[in-house]
Amino acid sequence: MFRKILIANRGEIAVRVIRACREMGIRTVAVYSEADEDAMHVRLADEAVCIGPAAPSASYLDMDRLISTALATKAEAIHPGFGFLSENAAFADKCAKFGIAFIGPSGELIDKMGNKSEAKHTMKEAGIPVVPGTDSPVYEAGEALEAAEIIGFPVMIKASAGGGGKGMRLAWNSQEFPALFHAAKQEAVNAFGDGSMYLERYVQSPRHIEVQIMADKFGNVVHLGERDCSVQRRHQKMIEESPCAFISPETRERICATAVQAAKAVGYENAGTIEFLLDQSGEFFFMEMNTRIQVEHPVSELVSGVDLIREQIHVAAGLPLSVKQEDILFRGHALECRINAEDPIHNFMPCPGTVEKLYLPGGNGVRMDTAIYPGYTIPPYYDSMIVKIIAYDRDRMSAIRKMISVLGEFRIRGVTTNLDFLYDVLNHPDFQSGMFSTDFIERHYEL
Amino acid sequence: MFRKILIANRGEIAVRVIRACREMGIRTVAVYSEADEDAMHVRLADEAVCIGPAAPSASYLDMDRLISTALATKAEAIHPGFGFLSENAAFADKCAKFGIAFIGPSGELIDKMGNKSEAKHTMKEAGIPVVPGTDSPVYEAGEALEAAEIIGFPVMIKASAGGGGKGMRLAWNSQEFPALFHAAKQEAVNAFGDGSMYLERYVQSPRHIEVQIMADKFGNVVHLGERDCSVQRRHQKMIEESPCAFISPETRERICATAVQAAKAVGYENAGTIEFLLDQSGEFFFMEMNTRIQVEHPVSELVSGVDLIREQIHVAAGLPLSVKQEDILFRGHALECRINAEDPIHNFMPCPGTVEKLYLPGGNGVRMDTAIYPGYTIPPYYDSMIVKIIAYDRDRMSAIRKMISVLGEFRIRGVTTNLDFLYDVLNHPDFQSGMFSTDFIERHYEL
Repeated sequence: MFRKILIANRGEIAVRVIRACREMGIRTVAVYSEADEDAMHVRLADEAVCIGPAAPSASYLDMDRLISTALATKAEAIHPGFGFLSENAAFADKCAKFGIAFIGPSGELIDKMGNKSEAKHTMKEAGIPVVPGTDSPVYEAGEALEAAEIIGFPVMIKASAGGGGKGMRLAWNSQEFPALFHAAKQEAVNAFGDGSMYLERYVQSPRHIEVQIMADKFGNVVHLGERDCSVQRRHQKMIEESPCAFISPETRERICATAVQAAKAVGYENAGTIEFLLDQSGEFFFMEMNTRIQVEHPVSELVSGVDLIREQIHVAAGLPLSVKQEDILFRGHALECRINAEDPIHNFMPCPGTVEKLYLPGGNGVRMDTAIYPGYTIPPYYDSMIVKIIAYDRDRMSAIRKMISVLGEFRIRGVTTNLDFLYDVLNHPDFQSGMFSTDFIERHYEL
Repeated sequence: MFRKILIANRGEIAVRVIRACREMGIRTVAVYSEADEDAMHVRLADEAVCIGPAAPSASYLDMDRLISTALATKAEAIHPGFGFLSENAAFADKCAKFGIAFIGPSGELIDKMGNKSEAKHTMKEAGIPVVPGTDSPVYEAGEALEAAEIIGFPVMIKASAGGGGKGMRLAWNSQEFPALFHAAKQEAVNAFGDGSMYLERYVQSPRHIEVQIMADKFGNVVHLGERDCSVQRRHQKMIEESPCAFISPETRERICATAVQAAKAVGYENAGTIEFLLDQSGEFFFMEMNTRIQVEHPVSELVSGVDLIREQIHVAAGLPLSVKQEDILFRGHALECRINAEDPIHNFMPCPGTVEKLYLPGGNGVRMDTAIYPGYTIPPYYDSMIVKIIAYDRDRMSAIRKMISVLGEFRIRGVTTNLDFLYDVLNHPDFQSGMFSTDFIERHYEL
């Protein structure tokens, strides 16, 4: 096992990794920018090294600085957390080149899954369902209609060179298809000078369901259940939960098995998440894979009882997975809310500031992952997420009630947050009844 | 379900009950003494009523005040927490008389189990193993030796009128028995003018194993597993855990089934704990029953996934248990440390004071039950326990490592605590290997 790990990150995830290391008897090296001198991860690590100015490009994203710091402090491995360099293949390769274990998959794997269209192609080859669509460009309404009928309506018509909604039409049936195709193509030609089009099944009001997987260097892969992350604002997740309470046991089994199959197909290693779109009929399609630990990993930890960060370190050290699929006992329901220093009234604008007072409620089934403390000044240079509250209870409704209770007890002064907004969402009858998909926030709060 | 509950307690257990009520949509009434004006339970409850001066007898133990406050605030039930009036049969009866639900067993049951020798007798009748001994006084060495051989050696010889160790001898075998019996009897006659003696099996280096049970008004009883509370200082528990990692699955099953049988035998209702002495051979004996929720209940909550306080309220309202035995999924290991405001160097003398700074670590598997906060002055009138830290992990050694990590991160300024002492115990090889019994602290720290 490693004797020392450098954490190439900041905030709550750095604290999370430091604690996992401490529990494993591994020493830790924190790195920090000049803006993070007073950050909690700096205080909690065994060693801390300043690696540059506040701008991420000059510190947390500076690969050479990170590598040389690891070498200088004799750290044998680097945990990248999420964000920053966590999905940077070049960084993973550089670590390998200098004999430092990158706690995550290889650069090759990051690359392979990082290119979305390549990843989709790989998955399709491996027999994983992807959103049905055309493989090559279509130009004529006739061939397009034929393709559309194979794909199945509703179909989204998109310009290959498209962007910004230009050259895009949604066709609900074959009657309206030809006219819409013409219009879209005309728009594409006008906007991009390119009339090559492609078609894709339109997934209506989908749920965002993702499966946490964990794999070792020996080809063993386990899943830690699925997460429902449908409550998003502009593709930014706000509330995540596990399990998804609104799919059948059969769908759950299928989607988790598919994720394991996908990971095996690419020879995956370490922690990863396979994201799917789930339509109203229970059909699901591969969307993308995240080749790192995610913000919402705690909900999977609480329901599965597996410590994902420790497991990441464990397999990165070349050990086999410490758990078998059949030994993982799923129990209860977990819900995560991201508390951000932002102002929902003013378009969720980030609101850094100084935490004057802070009271974090505790008690049964309440987990707080945070790196803020009273007197701490939130620097304006980084992510606005300041606390992750995770509520665990016997079932979904109990977990929601617990979360509402915790949000009501939570106190922070000096910083504007999205707390009231989250409180409102949790109390929304559609959220509680499960009548929501990825457009929930948009539909209820932004019109 | 009740609409409003009065909590006849203070400190962390009052906070614990308030949170459970909030999760159930029940309004809460806090009561407080003049010394507790700034207490957290006062802040968190929906209503708060001052019920008298600091002395417990004039406030938290004043039955009439509590009843009249419940009536005045229209509280339909009273939760007594632990300590104070929680095992007071007269109080339970008084509540019933005024139409207030006492959240606990009836006064009759409290009485029945409160008298230790009556409880032991009741249990023996019900076929529950109790420490083997004589039922009636013995006077002569001959009959005593016969009885001793039936009981089984080693045997403790005790004066019926005894106390303070007078007239007491430990006999390891039948050879030495007669002389020891004579000596003990002579001492008893001299000290108390009474030569009637009794014999009891001497349980060597026992473990304190207790089983959490929960029962409803319909005769349904479930157990929530066992707890090992062997680490005690002068019968005061310091570290509690669940499960006990050093008994066989067969012993576990037998001890839990016995506890359920015991609860059924007396027609028990609500939460209760059956305490056993477990000897080195795996034999166990009923010691006593606690007819209330206990300080250490969180470890059972974490491994069983059942919220004991909510369940207490649930069954007190006349509803059947919300869980069946076969649905309870035991998972992982939980460990609780009691942080007390006391000075281990000076004979564990209570050390109340003002909390100047406080930092409570959080993260995966860490639960904090507390009612202190920065700036809070711990009043000298009540229990010295200020924080319960509960660590939950996949197995015992992982939970110990997590607890050590948490204790190392924990910061409190202004108040002396037993934190370093607990840290030392957790790192003790005998504690880690399980080589301990109820005399662990005495043997390693007090000689």
